[in-house]
Amino acid sequence: MGGLATTLVLLSSVQAEQQALLDATASHPVQLGWMQGFPPPSDKLIMQPESDFFSFPKLRWTVCHIRELMPTKQVSRGIGPSSPMAYALDDGIDSVTFTPLGSEQPMTWKKALSANYTDGILILHQGKIVYEKYFGALHEAGKHAAMSMTKSVTGLLAEILVVEGKLDDTARVSSIVPELGQSAFGTATVRQVMDMTTALDFSEDYSDPNADIWIYSKAASPLPKPADYRGPNGYFDYLQTVKLDGDHGEAFGYKTINTDALGWMISRTTKTDFAHLLSERIWTRVGAEQDGYMTVDAKGAPFAGGGLSAGLRDLGRLGQLMLNGGELNGKRLFPEQVVNNIRAGGDRTAFEKAGFRTLAGGSYRSMWWVFHNEHGAYAARGVHGQTIYIDPTAQMVIVRLASHPQAKNAHTDPTSLPAYQAVADYLLKRSR
Amino acid sequence: MGGLATTLVLLSSVQAEQQALLDATASHPVQLGWMQGFPPPSDKLIMQPESDFFSFPKLRWTVCHIRELMPTKQVSRGIGPSSPMAYALDDGIDSVTFTPLGSEQPMTWKKALSANYTDGILILHQGKIVYEKYFGALHEAGKHAAMSMTKSVTGLLAEILVVEGKLDDTARVSSIVPELGQSAFGTATVRQVMDMTTALDFSEDYSDPNADIWIYSKAASPLPKPADYRGPNGYFDYLQTVKLDGDHGEAFGYKTINTDALGWMISRTTKTDFAHLLSERIWTRVGAEQDGYMTVDAKGAPFAGGGLSAGLRDLGRLGQLMLNGGELNGKRLFPEQVVNNIRAGGDRTAFEKAGFRTLAGGSYRSMWWVFHNEHGAYAARGVHGQTIYIDPTAQMVIVRLASHPQAKNAHTDPTSLPAYQAVADYLLKRSR
Repeated sequence: MGGLATTLVLLSSVQAEQQALLDATASHPVQLGWMQGFPPPSDKLIMQPESDFFSFPKLRWTVCHIRELMPTKQVSRGIGPSSPMAYALDDGIDSVTFTPLGSEQPMTWKKALSANYTDGILILHQGKIVYEKYFGALHEAGKHAAMSMTKSVTGLLAEILVVEGKLDDTARVSSIVPELGQSAFGTATVRQVMDMTTALDFSEDYSDPNADIWIYSKAASPLPKPADYRGPNGYFDYLQTVKLDGDHGEAFGYKTINTDALGWMISRTTKTDFAHLLSERIWTRVGAEQDGYMTVDAKGAPFAGGGLSAGLRDLGRLGQLMLNGGELNGKRLFPEQVVNNIRAGGDRTAFEKAGFRTLAGGSYRSMWWVFHNEHGAYAARGVHGQTIYIDPTAQMVIVRLASHPQAKNAHTDPTSLPAYQAVADYLLKRSR
Repeated sequence: MGGLATTLVLLSSVQAEQQALLDATASHPVQLGWMQGFPPPSDKLIMQPESDFFSFPKLRWTVCHIRELMPTKQVSRGIGPSSPMAYALDDGIDSVTFTPLGSEQPMTWKKALSANYTDGILILHQGKIVYEKYFGALHEAGKHAAMSMTKSVTGLLAEILVVEGKLDDTARVSSIVPELGQSAFGTATVRQVMDMTTALDFSEDYSDPNADIWIYSKAASPLPKPADYRGPNGYFDYLQTVKLDGDHGEAFGYKTINTDALGWMISRTTKTDFAHLLSERIWTRVGAEQDGYMTVDAKGAPFAGGGLSAGLRDLGRLGQLMLNGGELNGKRLFPEQVVNNIRAGGDRTAFEKAGFRTLAGGSYRSMWWVFHNEHGAYAARGVHGQTIYIDPTAQMVIVRLASHPQAKNAHTDPTSLPAYQAVADYLLKRSR
């Protein structure tokens, strides 16, 4: 998605909170008939602008059809065979019970899926698929927007380069991308960008029409700019305009522009387009069964902060690769140190200042969320309920793709995080 | 490509004829550095609008990167294994010699490749790859715009439906798509549309700013319409406005809108999106190694008249499927009658009236070009030099993907058609 999507989604979520929401069944994108018919009736069309196509309930269709609305760049799987995934399905998971955060009513795993507007859910245990379901507009050969899970993919590539000695995480950003020298990023270290402890004057106040997020959104749009447009065009242009607000390294601040700056540093370092690098380093090497793709700005730069779409099982392969410490199908893709660095987590004091209620005690490292719980779990997360949740203790990976009406994961966490823990406990108990 | 591309390309070709053209080496899209760098320097950017990104020499990069500039719909190969293709490479082909049409100087096959700005070339003989090369911006895991070869794919799907008894080619268009009842298409038969012998008042006079082609182009663009735009939006809207000019069935008139009307009839008949149908009937069943994709209008309708991009070998699989009469890898995809109907050709008298100089004596059937030569050859053809050339006598399929500066195949035919014949003769002689 362009930055616009991210922001308008958040805006639409505010509107959504003010009205009764259709539940998962009532908002089912196939049942609602979006884009069906030749042509679809006018009230079933999903078209530009983004404020419309990413509004609920349309977004339930859109998350599986991003490429049909925007230009995109392929993340090629190559042309070789895919790696088969082993199955050991366990119907018992449906009845696993947990208590949602802030509730006293227990809920089953199965029930939680619709509560979270799940489109695709995959559970891997000890490398085998124990659970896999598709809902909404997703199917096994379909792709779904990863939203901000893209950040974790970007962070992973950066961490790989750091461990390989190609990217110095103690270096100043300006030494890698001189064009960022006059911006707030210039004086930050690569690590501060990777962990989002930069001090950026970047307002995401959606009620303020002059907020930075709107300027960023316009810059990031792949559509041709209006003739009278004088602002920045593209991610790289925009990032150069970001001003400093405070001191780097003090507090975690979850701002997408960090990831776009990191994406720029990665491309500059590797002399490789981001989508191509992702293909080269990960997608062609995990035995992916589908190509992925990334949205781009008007100059062709992939949206490192949120533009990836991919298949459910391919994201499962990525999760398993992390769980295995960089190895998959007997092939080592990167040193184990990469995963160890991420799992170790970031600055918990800095993280606490950001006030993520459902993630208290956690941290953010190389664009992965680290829970610092007993199981050592960590995750990629994206708005509307996307996650790759990795539990090393339970040897479990959960991938959930979803289209929750609200763009804040604080709404999905209460029926997700304890559910993941409950399934982990169930699998641990079963394997004893 | 949107209709816009087709037309602007033709316009740019007029301009191109007025200036000295860079040759294949001087216009090499990788050597020229298009879209290289983070960001690319401003003089190396390829962006909207279409009049710019599809101008020569930029188009040499663009033909391999359509999806990065426009929204597209996937033509899925599915997630199963691809079918391997056997090799029996023959270096002797490079020295096969022919005399270009209208010339007295002989030319080698190898020389013809650069004369035609070839990006990818594949020759299959008796089902095995005997020749395969990549140039320009194409590589074996890349995709290339098929341009008007898309029409032949559309025609093939229509012919399949006709032979299967699902589409009556003697029926009036209005009986299948009532919305076309008041347009010129309404009184035409399905067959007249399939063979482009409709009588349509559709001007492609590029020097006239009020020509129909410009209205069509605006309608077909996937970009949001300007606020003051009052014209048709999308292929289906536009087709309803086309007026009659003469009597159907009298003369061949090569007009892309016929294919879009046929695409509409196909979708209405099968209740299936065109890109999905192409996946279901062909792409998932020929053992394709890559997904293809199609450009779409602003309402998501695929461009049946020219929107396909695909890999070289996958187009080779399609050609081999035709040569084999509907069978591939021991699997029958459709009755042999489908290919027989196409090979038999269309109305040669009607064809003659259109004055295609390099195709004299030929005809057009179900959107395939039939040469009526001694070998019984027929072809899919697209501007800038695209072809799938099928020679049943020599048991040969040639796929050429190219980015010739000029959008008229009359410029590429002189160094192509006799070259294909010469290779066919060479292979025939070799196999005796």
